[in-house]
Formats: sequence, structure tokens, C-alpha cells
Amino acid sequence: MRMYDIIAKKRNGGELTTEEINFFIEGYTKGEIPDYQVSSLMMAIYFQKMNKRETADLTMAMVNSGEIVDLSAIEGIKVDKHSTGGVGDTTTLILGPIVAAAGVPVAKMSGRGLGHTGGTLDKLESFPGFSIDMSVEQFISNVNERKIAIGGQTANLAPADKKLYALRDVTATVDNMSLIAGSIMSKKIAAGADAIVLDVKTGSGAFMKDEDSAFELAKEMVDIGNNVGRNTIGVITDMDQPLGFAVGNALEVKEAIETLKGEGPEDLTELCLTLGSYMLVLGGKAKDSKEARNILEDIIKSGKGLAKLKELVEAQGGDPSYVEDPKLFKVPSIVEPVLAEEDGYVKAIKADDIGISALVLGAGRETKESEIDLSVGVIIHKKIGDFVKKGEAIATIYANDRNKKNQSEEIILNAYEIVKDKVDKKPLIKGIVTKDGIQKF
Amino acid sequence: MRMYDIIAKKRNGGELTTEEINFFIEGYTKGEIPDYQVSSLMMAIYFQKMNKRETADLTMAMVNSGEIVDLSAIEGIKVDKHSTGGVGDTTTLILGPIVAAAGVPVAKMSGRGLGHTGGTLDKLESFPGFSIDMSVEQFISNVNERKIAIGGQTANLAPADKKLYALRDVTATVDNMSLIAGSIMSKKIAAGADAIVLDVKTGSGAFMKDEDSAFELAKEMVDIGNNVGRNTIGVITDMDQPLGFAVGNALEVKEAIETLKGEGPEDLTELCLTLGSYMLVLGGKAKDSKEARNILEDIIKSGKGLAKLKELVEAQGGDPSYVEDPKLFKVPSIVEPVLAEEDGYVKAIKADDIGISALVLGAGRETKESEIDLSVGVIIHKKIGDFVKKGEAIATIYANDRNKKNQSEEIILNAYEIVKDKVDKKPLIKGIVTKDGIQKF
Repeated sequence: MRMYDIIAKKRNGGELTTEEINFFIEGYTKGEIPDYQVSSLMMAIYFQKMNKRETADLTMAMVNSGEIVDLSAIEGIKVDKHSTGGVGDTTTLILGPIVAAAGVPVAKMSGRGLGHTGGTLDKLESFPGFSIDMSVEQFISNVNERKIAIGGQTANLAPADKKLYALRDVTATVDNMSLIAGSIMSKKIAAGADAIVLDVKTGSGAFMKDEDSAFELAKEMVDIGNNVGRNTIGVITDMDQPLGFAVGNALEVKEAIETLKGEGPEDLTELCLTLGSYMLVLGGKAKDSKEARNILEDIIKSGKGLAKLKELVEAQGGDPSYVEDPKLFKVPSIVEPVLAEEDGYVKAIKADDIGISALVLGAGRETKESEIDLSVGVIIHKKIGDFVKKGEAIATIYANDRNKKNQSEEIILNAYEIVKDKVDKKPLIKGIVTKDGIQKF
Repeated sequence: MRMYDIIAKKRNGGELTTEEINFFIEGYTKGEIPDYQVSSLMMAIYFQKMNKRETADLTMAMVNSGEIVDLSAIEGIKVDKHSTGGVGDTTTLILGPIVAAAGVPVAKMSGRGLGHTGGTLDKLESFPGFSIDMSVEQFISNVNERKIAIGGQTANLAPADKKLYALRDVTATVDNMSLIAGSIMSKKIAAGADAIVLDVKTGSGAFMKDEDSAFELAKEMVDIGNNVGRNTIGVITDMDQPLGFAVGNALEVKEAIETLKGEGPEDLTELCLTLGSYMLVLGGKAKDSKEARNILEDIIKSGKGLAKLKELVEAQGGDPSYVEDPKLFKVPSIVEPVLAEEDGYVKAIKADDIGISALVLGAGRETKESEIDLSVGVIIHKKIGDFVKKGEAIATIYANDRNKKNQSEEIILNAYEIVKDKVDKKPLIKGIVTKDGIQKF
């Protein structure tokens, strides 16, 4: 078998066999097939696409390129959740506890990564003492005992995907649904998921700017999952404005605590109930999403969700008193409002820019070496459709540096589009994709 | 400027600017832009094509990537000829002398290369003592004095093309008309040509198997030439069977000598007169191809062409007595006929296979290190449309090794397709492409 023939076959619109896909992924991972052949194949795939079978094969070849996490010692169906990323997404901190409280095992391996704010690990480190350092045995015993543990990612998960993504990123071959979907799914499957709930964001703050592409990507991932024996459901959700109000590490943790008390932002609560419901269904803890939602609403009302978060923090060395008294979280030296410059209705909020307004304060990493300031960030007070009066606070900035605060303020003011005419609120959940098809709301 | 943006622009169907093309070719030549980005751009070009302006810019960027041969000290218009390659193509050995005899300067820089037989240099080395070693001054003074000299290629001619071709060759991105045309033209222009006559072959023994592609390639090259100020004409010729009868080094030299005496194969003679006519027109030595053809026919009849070959051989240290008495050429130990196995008409001859039948005897190089046996080769006796009787010789093999001879014989027998029904002869010249358009015969 020769890589040249594989490139030529795909270039000419052919369907690659399982053997050809395995050959190329194995050879590339081992360094036997050079970057320049792979990048030309990626460009050929960009133009000629891959069908469902090829996409599933590519995903499994990437899964098999490295370590596959063995979670078989954990009782129950391991349901993982994946979000395609957005601004102010505190979901994991809420979903984990409520789903665990419902009896679905949450064996979460999270990363730090680059972004507007830190990753789930960074956010949890807002609890003094919290640590992800534990042996695999400890991790598994924690999940079996408490239904929840948060660990760090192993380095060797789907290394082929890592290498391939880095190459695609510099050769303008990222934008292909099969390749994007395969990249995401390979990591989830290698991480040991039995079933997967996908939160595919769409809008100005999302990777998929338009709704059709988001549905297409969700369909692609759901098809991969079901083709390789992982029950998978995709939920398409709005990211045309930040989710919830808080963007920042400790600020998002506080928002998660409020939400677990039933006092969180409406959209964030709704998203967690929706995604959580499907996790319960896939985890075999409810017969349909309606029953699952009732269970989760009870868990919030009864305080069982909040108690689960406290249990998690305590089990991993964090100070649980912060859960009960969020005023303990460190507050930065500057806390100042951003005032509206005119009357009107909020027509749009550039979600990406709100993310950047938090990043410039030091809430996230620009490079792997950046240090994060867990206390800083932004809380917005107005969302799309809200009326705002001139001089009223549209946001509050939490900062430790006057210059950065001024920079952040300017970005926030520019991110808001305020108009005279009334603006309708936007629905949060846009549709569901299952193996049976697409359902748009 | 970033290479990423150039790839993405072409991928999306955009037109690259002159600056973008120069940036990428310069960066690639210097090793600043990596192979993997260039191969993905090549694949994007394969799908999105380049227009005439981009193709001309690419060609000139490759010309400017290295040395440009300065032939300005040579009087007259330097007309170069290029053939896209085929089997048994002895044209240069005939065209050079007759065109030079007509007063058009022939400053030929030839290579050795890989192929069924050696290159023009190898063939000329069949004359004992012949050498291409001379200074640039000597080369130029030879051309001014005798109108002809054959030198070796400089190493640094269009290095970008060399690097790019090697990459395209292993990434399935060779087959794009703009890239093929640019590659050929960049080398000709860098070699100092003022005007160019192209012999674009089509048929089983050619790179372009079908006629439409050959016309398309010719048009692409003619457009490049005229876009960058080089008067260029393309002639589309048949390579559905070997040209002439001889395939081998000394064997082809002998055939060239016969042709210069007016006793050569009909097709080879016709091709040389046609290509030569256009060279005379572009070189300003005739007002049209009809007048040019008369001049060249006179040169052959009067023996001036043969005399010019003798002059060339002598000037470069070769033994000129071989021109007068071709029996002096070394004959290998085995000279045996290949006998037809049935009666019938020759319907097809796989030209590539006839080439390979000579290659296995040792007439050409399989790798750069291979040594060539100048004496071996194949002479075919039957061409398409000819009648052949069972037991009659369809070819003669000249070999120095019994096993190789047997191998060659089998290839030749398989290359011939003999049928019962009468077969028409094929026209040699299929059309002409000039800046004014395509003329099919």
C-alpha cells in the first residue's frame, strides 16, 4: 500500500477503504508518512469529502492510535458531555453534580487549554486546595463511591488527532465536517465514553457561526457515535451572546453555585436541564427526557446538586466552606460598572468580544505559559432583548489592573449593539439531533 | 503576508496576486515555507485551477528563483525546441543541424535524465571523444561561429521548479495543466530562449494520453510564452507508436544520420521538417512555414545538414568519420530478429512498452546511477497499418546479454496488436497552437 495511491484515490473522488485509512493514520502517527503527503490528502478530503463509513473509520483509527482509557471498573453507563466551545460556558460545573446526584457516573477528564477563561480544572482551583492529582485507582474508586471525580487528561489520548489537527491548522484544511467531527469524537471515545451528549453551539461566539453548519456538524458526530457503537445525541444551542452572566474563573464558579441553588441565570439553567436530561436518558436513569427533567429539577430544588458539588470539592482536597459561602472567593481590587452610553434595546452582543474583555483582564491563557488570575472577569447584566437606560450598568468588571480594566471596558461597550426598536429574545435550544434524524425547534 | 492565507484564498477559489505567488515561490526556494503547506496549496490549485495571469506569474517566479542563462552574446534569435517526451525521439539530433544550417543559432543545453534511452548528451557520446565540457565563452563562440553547440545543463536552473516538481510527484498533484505548463516553460525561459517551438505528444507512448489534453497543454504553454514575451508555437504530434524505427542510443544516432541524408523514416523526417519550419519562422529566417520547409528540404538534399552534424561532432572532440561511415558504430554481440507469430495488420503498438524493451537491454537509466550501454536497443520494422506475415521480422534486437534479449523479445511481441482487418495509417501532425488559437488537422 502506498500513500501516493491513497491521495490520488481521494483526489479522484474515490472512497477510501478501512485498510487505507488505518494505513495512513498508523503511518502518520509513527512518523513514517510525511506531513506533506498528509496535508495534500487533507486538502483532497476538503474538496471530495468523506462518507459516513470513512468518517467512522478515521475516527476509530485515531482512537486506536494511542491510549484508550479503560473505565470498565466504573459501574454504570459512562455518559460524557462535550461542548464545541463558547463564552461563559459554566455548564460542566453544574451538570456534573446534578447528573452524578441522579446516579449517572461522571468520570471527567478535563484539560486546561487556551481560551477566554481557564478550563474546568482552572475554575475548580478557585476552591483553595482543590487538586486533580490522584492515581487511576483513586479516581475510579471516587467515581464508584460518589459518582463523580475530575481528573487531568492523559497525554497520549488520540495522538493521531493531535498531530493531524496541528497540521490542518496551518494548511487551511480545518473546515471539513468529517474531519472536525472525527477529531472531537476520537478524543471522547478514547477517553472511555460509553455514550455522549454533544452541545453544538451556533452564533457569533461559536466555531459554527451559522445554524445550518451546526446542525450538519451535530449530525456528523451523532452518526459517527452511532456507527461505532456509542449512543450519541446532539443538542444545538445558541451562542449569539454569552451563556449566563459571568465570564471568569471564580465568577463562573459562583454562578454555578447560584444555579445549583436554583437561583442561576435562566439560559444557563435551561441548558443544564436539557443536556442533563439527555445524559440521564443515555445513562439509563430515565425513560425519556421529560422524566429526566423532573428528576433533575427535584435534585436542584432539594439541594442535592449543591451537596454533590460540595462533596466533590471536599473529596479532592478543596475547601468546601466556599460552596456554602461564596463570599469567601477572593475579589480583585477593582470592581466597577460599565455604563450604557444611550437608551435602547440590546440587539446583539458580540460574544467573542465579551470573552476577549475577560481575557485581557487575565482570566484566560493566550499562550501555554500564561498565568491565570482566577479572580478577574466580567459579569454582564443585560442580554439580547433587554432594555437599557443611559447611565445604567450593562456589565461589571472585576480587575486587578487599571489599564486592563479600561481596555476591557472599551471592548465591552463595542460588543453591545443598542437600538431604539424593541428586540425579541432568542430561543436557547435550537434543535436536537439523534440517530433517527434532525428535529428543529 | 502569510502562507496560510494564500492556501485558504486559493482553496476558496480566489485569484492569487503576483506578490502572493512571488512570496510563496521565494519562501519555498529558501526553505522558509515548509513542504506541507506547499503540498496543500498544490492540491488546492489542482481543484481550483489558476488563470492565465497566475500561471504566467508562477512561471516567471520559478524562472527568477535561480540562474537565468544569458545568451545575449549570441547573434540572432535563440529559438529553443521542447518535446514533451516519447519513445524513439531522435528529433534533436536532426533538427539541430538543419536549423543551424539555415542560420538559426542552436545553443542547446541538454540533460541526461532517466528514460527508455539516454538523453541527447548520451546519444552524442556514441561518437568516440565527443564532449560537452567547455567554458561558457567557448560555448558562445562555437554558436556564433558554427550556429550550433551542445552543452550540459547548469545545476541551478529554476530550482523552485525542481523542488516543486519533486513534491508534486509524491503528493498526487502533478496533473494540473497550469503546473505542468509552468514547469516546462520555466526551464526553457531560464535557459535563455527568445522563442520556443513545442512538440506536444499525444497517444499511448506520451504523457498526454488523449488528444484534447495535449491541445489543452499546448495552449497553456503557448499562452504562458506569449504572456511573458516569448514567441511560442505548439505542434501536437502522434505518439501512439514509436517515432521512426530506432530506440537506443547509437541506433538513434545512425537513424539521425540516415534522415539527414534524406533516407530516414517518413514520420521522423516529416516531424523534423514541421518543427524546423516553425523554428525558422520564429527565428526570422523565413516569412512562413511553407518557405521555411523549402529551405529545410534544400538543406537535406544538398547535404548541408549532414555536414553541419559532422562539424558539430568535430568541434566538440568527437570522431567525425562516424558520420560518413555509420558502420563504425559499435554493434553489440547479439543481433536477432523478433518474428511475427501470425499474419495480419498492425493495429496498435504500445509505444511505452517498446521503450521498456530497450530499457531492459540497458539503453536507458532506471536510476541516476545506472550505466548506459550505448550500443544496445531495438529497431522496429512494422508500424501501424503495415501488413505482417507469420515468421516475418517485426523488429530486430541489439543486445549484449541473452537473458535480457529474451525479456525484451517478449515485451515487443506483447506490445504489438495484430488483427485480420486492414488498418488505416495514422496522421502524424494533429494540429498547431499559436497565440491566435488552435488549428486542428
